[in-house]
Parts: sequence; structure tokens; C-alpha cells
Amino acid sequence: MNQIITISREFGSGGRELGRRLSEHLGCAYYDQEIVQEIAKRTELSEKYVQQVIGHRPISSFPIHIGRSFRMMADPNLDQSQTIFREQCTILREIAAKSDCVIVGRCADYILQDEEPFRIFVYADMPSKVKRCREKNYEKEELTDRELERRIAAVNRRRAEYYEYYTGQKWGDRIHYDLCINTTQGTVKGIAAAVARLFPPKD
Amino acid sequence: MNQIITISREFGSGGRELGRRLSEHLGCAYYDQEIVQEIAKRTELSEKYVQQVIGHRPISSFPIHIGRSFRMMADPNLDQSQTIFREQCTILREIAAKSDCVIVGRCADYILQDEEPFRIFVYADMPSKVKRCREKNYEKEELTDRELERRIAAVNRRRAEYYEYYTGQKWGDRIHYDLCINTTQGTVKGIAAAVARLFPPKD
Repeated sequence: MNQIITISREFGSGGRELGRRLSEHLGCAYYDQEIVQEIAKRTELSEKYVQQVIGHRPISSFPIHIGRSFRMMADPNLDQSQTIFREQCTILREIAAKSDCVIVGRCADYILQDEEPFRIFVYADMPSKVKRCREKNYEKEELTDRELERRIAAVNRRRAEYYEYYTGQKWGDRIHYDLCINTTQGTVKGIAAAVARLFPPKD
Repeated sequence: MNQIITISREFGSGGRELGRRLSEHLGCAYYDQEIVQEIAKRTELSEKYVQQVIGHRPISSFPIHIGRSFRMMADPNLDQSQTIFREQCTILREIAAKSDCVIVGRCADYILQDEEPFRIFVYADMPSKVKRCREKNYEKEELTDRELERRIAAVNRRRAEYYEYYTGQKWGDRIHYDLCINTTQGTVKGIAAAVARLFPPKD
């Protein structure tokens, strides 16, 4: 069985960098944005659209108060979300079957549970996430710290909602991970080197 | 400043073993039961009694419905708990000032926050905690798995109550730790070796 490492991460925690560095230490494949590109290719949807859909929990086009009798009607919004999620599952399983790898995001910890992945959750306190976002220029510099905090919190709320919608599990609940890493102190570089030691080279 | 590593751990998770192994890797002091012994010596109370007190959140001897007017009366139970906790704080600060060390339990992560300790929380799923308890013979063999699970849950509930009483923080909430380690998979030996890498030798 291939060694699969999944990284779930709070926005601004440096989880993506940790995943990339870890894959470099282990000399294995690394998947992140490539998954979105592949979904776009296979569904013939634009990458931007796919990115938008997988960044949010699906929302029905019908208001709830219409009632149960409408449930059976096709809902194009929901259908497209489900199609994209199914494609995502297929791609993840293909990736996992191919070779050892590090996968960032995409509910991979849950979708690939039969492959017994090593599941990492990366988090940090808010000031440190704000600092990292500024350094990485994720957000426009003219935002105040308070505005940036609200943005970060909103992205993380959406990630939690998306994860919980598809997995029925609480995002970030330690019991679903093998290791939860706080990047507030220490460098991601140093942490990645130490974490890599958990995976001794195969014979 | 000395390098202080604190280990908070669920009962049955192997956290104590992890702490001991980590101190061996780092060649630093290790404190666990020694703290209880020292409290007993300084307070002239028996070690068994101290152990019992620090295993539970303090409970007032007066029933709550007696009312506010009794609040000012001395409460021997509460007084003794507070005395023991104060002694614990003093001892922890002395230990931290002495040398690099690993400290298991005793709210050390909170009490020593000014020393910026590296705070580890160790946990595991219930079947793995039951298995570890049986291996370590913590509990009498005649207990069924269900009974042992209830015992483990009760110990962990008491640890959470004690921690929350003295710190005002939620025990096991990831934001209060630098690393949360699930020992369900993997060996404590291997995990300790990897975690030790987070602490490069000092110049």
C-alpha cells in the first residue's frame, strides 16, 4: 500500500508549505492545485468555476420553505457540486493508487480512509495567520488587521462547512487526525523536517 | 531560558511513555511522579492523599444551597486543595528554572506559560486506550472492555475538570498546544524519536 499523507489546514497556517516541504523530504509526489486542474479538465468546466464550487458547501437553488414535494426535482446547483465531488473522489483514488504522496485539502483524509493515510491538521493562532497572509500577499495590503482576520475566519468557516457537508465529521476535531500541528511558534521548515522523520525510508 | 516541554495526555494514550522517551532523546530532566512526592514532602501530607487531591477538581465541603452568607467561612477541603496547588506552582517554577526538562501533567503548560514551554497533548481512540491499559496492567484484568472504557472516560473527565478549574481553559483544545499527537497508529517509540527532532541541540 502506498504511503499517503493528507494535510488539512487552516487558511494562513502554512499547511500548504508544510505539505510541499514534507513531500520534498520524502521524495514523493505532491498534489494540491493539480487536483482542481484535473477536475476542470475532466468535467469540462473552467478551473475558476471548479475552484469556486469546491470552496463552498453546496447550497440548493430551491429555498427550504418550498417544502418536501419539490425534493425530487433536479437541482442544477446541487447536481454540479455532486458531479465535481464525485470526480474529485475518483481522481484522489487514482492518485493514491499511483505512488506515495502528500495531498493538501480536498477531504482526502476522509475519501481515502481505506488507504489508511497519515492525517495531519495544521493550525495557528489568529495573529500568526494574519502575519503569514501579509507575508504571502494573499490579501491586498490595504486591509486592516481586523478586516484580514474576518477574511481568514470566513475562509476557514467555509472549509469547515464543506468538510462537514461531505464527511459528516467535524473539521479540525483531533480524533480524525494523527497529528495536529500548531505553526504559531517555530518555522514550517523545521517542523517539516521533524515530521518527515515519522516516515522511515522503505526497505 | 531553559527548554521546557510539557505533556498533557489522555489516560491510556501512552503520553507518559512519550514524555520519558523524549527526555531520554534530549538528555534532559523528566518530572512526573516526583512532583507529587515533593508536594507531599513540603506540605507534610501523605503522597496518597496528595495524589487523590490533585486527581480531582476541588469540591467545597458546603452544599451550595446553604447560601452566600456561609461563603466567608473557612472550607477545609477547598483550603487544602488550594495549598497543594500553590505548592505545585512553586515546585514547577523551581524545576523550570533549574534546567531543560519534560514535565508530565500538573497543568504545567498553563502554570509555566511565561517560560514559553513547548506544549504537547497526547491522545488516542478508545480501543487503543483500552488495549494500552490492558498491556500496562493499569486495571484489573477481570474488567470487561465496556467497564474499562468507562473507567478511562472517568479518569479523563476528572483530568479535564481539574485542568479547567485551575486554568479556565478547555483541556485538549488544540489552540492551547503546539502539537497534538494521536498514538492510535504508530509506536510511541517512533513518535518520540521524530518529536525529539523538533528540538535541535543547543550551541
